[in-house]
Amino acid sequence: MTRFLLYFLPGAGHLAAPLAQELGADIGEIEFHKFPDGETYLRFLTPPDGRHIALVDCLDRPDPKLIPLLFAAMTAKDLGAKSVGLIAPYMPYFRQDIAFHRGESISARHIGSLLSTHLSWVTTLDPHLHRLAGLDDVFTIPGELAHATAPIAQWINTHIESPIIYGPDEESEQWVKSIAEACGAPYDVFRKTRLGDRNVQIEVPPGMAASDHTPVIIDDIISSGTTLATLVRTLCESGQPRPICCAVHGIFAEDAYEQLIAAGAARVVTTNALPHKTNAIDVTGALADAARRIALPED
Amino acid sequence: MTRFLLYFLPGAGHLAAPLAQELGADIGEIEFHKFPDGETYLRFLTPPDGRHIALVDCLDRPDPKLIPLLFAAMTAKDLGAKSVGLIAPYMPYFRQDIAFHRGESISARHIGSLLSTHLSWVTTLDPHLHRLAGLDDVFTIPGELAHATAPIAQWINTHIESPIIYGPDEESEQWVKSIAEACGAPYDVFRKTRLGDRNVQIEVPPGMAASDHTPVIIDDIISSGTTLATLVRTLCESGQPRPICCAVHGIFAEDAYEQLIAAGAARVVTTNALPHKTNAIDVTGALADAARRIALPED
Repeated sequence: MTRFLLYFLPGAGHLAAPLAQELGADIGEIEFHKFPDGETYLRFLTPPDGRHIALVDCLDRPDPKLIPLLFAAMTAKDLGAKSVGLIAPYMPYFRQDIAFHRGESISARHIGSLLSTHLSWVTTLDPHLHRLAGLDDVFTIPGELAHATAPIAQWINTHIESPIIYGPDEESEQWVKSIAEACGAPYDVFRKTRLGDRNVQIEVPPGMAASDHTPVIIDDIISSGTTLATLVRTLCESGQPRPICCAVHGIFAEDAYEQLIAAGAARVVTTNALPHKTNAIDVTGALADAARRIALPED
Repeated sequence: MTRFLLYFLPGAGHLAAPLAQELGADIGEIEFHKFPDGETYLRFLTPPDGRHIALVDCLDRPDPKLIPLLFAAMTAKDLGAKSVGLIAPYMPYFRQDIAFHRGESISARHIGSLLSTHLSWVTTLDPHLHRLAGLDDVFTIPGELAHATAPIAQWINTHIESPIIYGPDEESEQWVKSIAEACGAPYDVFRKTRLGDRNVQIEVPPGMAASDHTPVIIDDIISSGTTLATLVRTLCESGQPRPICCAVHGIFAEDAYEQLIAAGAARVVTTNALPHKTNAIDVTGALADAARRIALPED
């Protein structure tokens, strides 16, 4: 079988060795350079000619990363790559999936359009799918989802004695339930009202009471950390043990991590989808499985 | 005649009032906001529905600006704009118009492809056209060039007594010649060899000698300022009066301005294509003329 060729864009290097090993793939090299005027220079040092390749790009803080990604995809095609896939451990802009007010950019669809034009397929890990039913709502190219559910459940099983799983809002119920079931643990979800970027109102689920279970709050994304910090304080005030915060994507805007610790979190753990000191859960296998399902050529 | 509707993206606000006045156009408003996670939010506060619109965007330091621009163009189309043009006083990536080494991104063509997909027409001021013959080499949408030649010549005529015009390299000869002729001034060009981003070798034109003319060195772009600083020092060492540095696009990476002054420049002047304290030459009229030629609807 043809060996697959992976290129890791700046910020995704931590996944290179494990992902290439999981996929039995070669690692290619692209030289990146910023000119003094802020323009990006890039050069494929490993030729993609005649190969099935994938670009691996962690697209947090996305705007400055997307142009180099699109240029790399176009260059690979110019050079004769057979197909150019995208493995995006984090897919940005999926929370902007509807115009709440007339005139708003529906950015999830726009990012889908941009990437669909220049890539052959896409896989990503647990993107924010609330009103969007799946990747097909956004991309016109084949897409395949990877899931962090199993690695998260396994980490909880291994590290937390007698956990209770909390979801930050009603949207998270299905997801929290499946992790809780995989752990054989009880679960509950909060009711959240968002009042602004950094202001959320939390309603405690009825019947929540002090217990000996260790609370594990699970969210898909830690961005400003405001929601999680409020949940942590709410749990501590209700007399429960200090909670663990667990997230798939640790973006950690500004002092988000410090705020969670200050709020009373016993520990913050994330997957290695985005590199951060809180990384404790390996999702390389999940990403490799999804890429293998969609991308490995038959020829 | 239908009135034209202009939207000014962040960094282009200095052109709003004069350009709208030159074009007899309305000014529309787009709300821009960065979420804590670095994603861009944008909303058209002035509806583009059923209108011919143009987005005005100064695309220096381009990567973080291009995604908001593309999202704005896509949103305008989603909302029912009849056409969505781009007035880019500075067009980035035109110096990367060829692969000098195998594997390099030909970014000029890639930026052309991205913008052509999402915009109806484009106008820009004196882009770097060396190997590229014109906008049609890069864009598949209609394009129209604006020129700073006349406003630069007029500024020199008004402000410099007895000028001599210098071009930084042989590429600039045609351009420098036409400015010199418009001023009735002599001109000459240097011979430049680029050894790196910040390292150029200059050859003094044969026959250059001390004179009473005030040297005016004209370049299209001041980026790191390395080339111009070297030319300034060369002129000063050859016994000429301290030169004026004049450029269409003042990007001024890092301490480029300070380096030019330290090298001995008597003054640095730029057009207002990109906002900077050195702006002295108004190109609003040139931009408006080009936009009018390409964009003003008949209906």
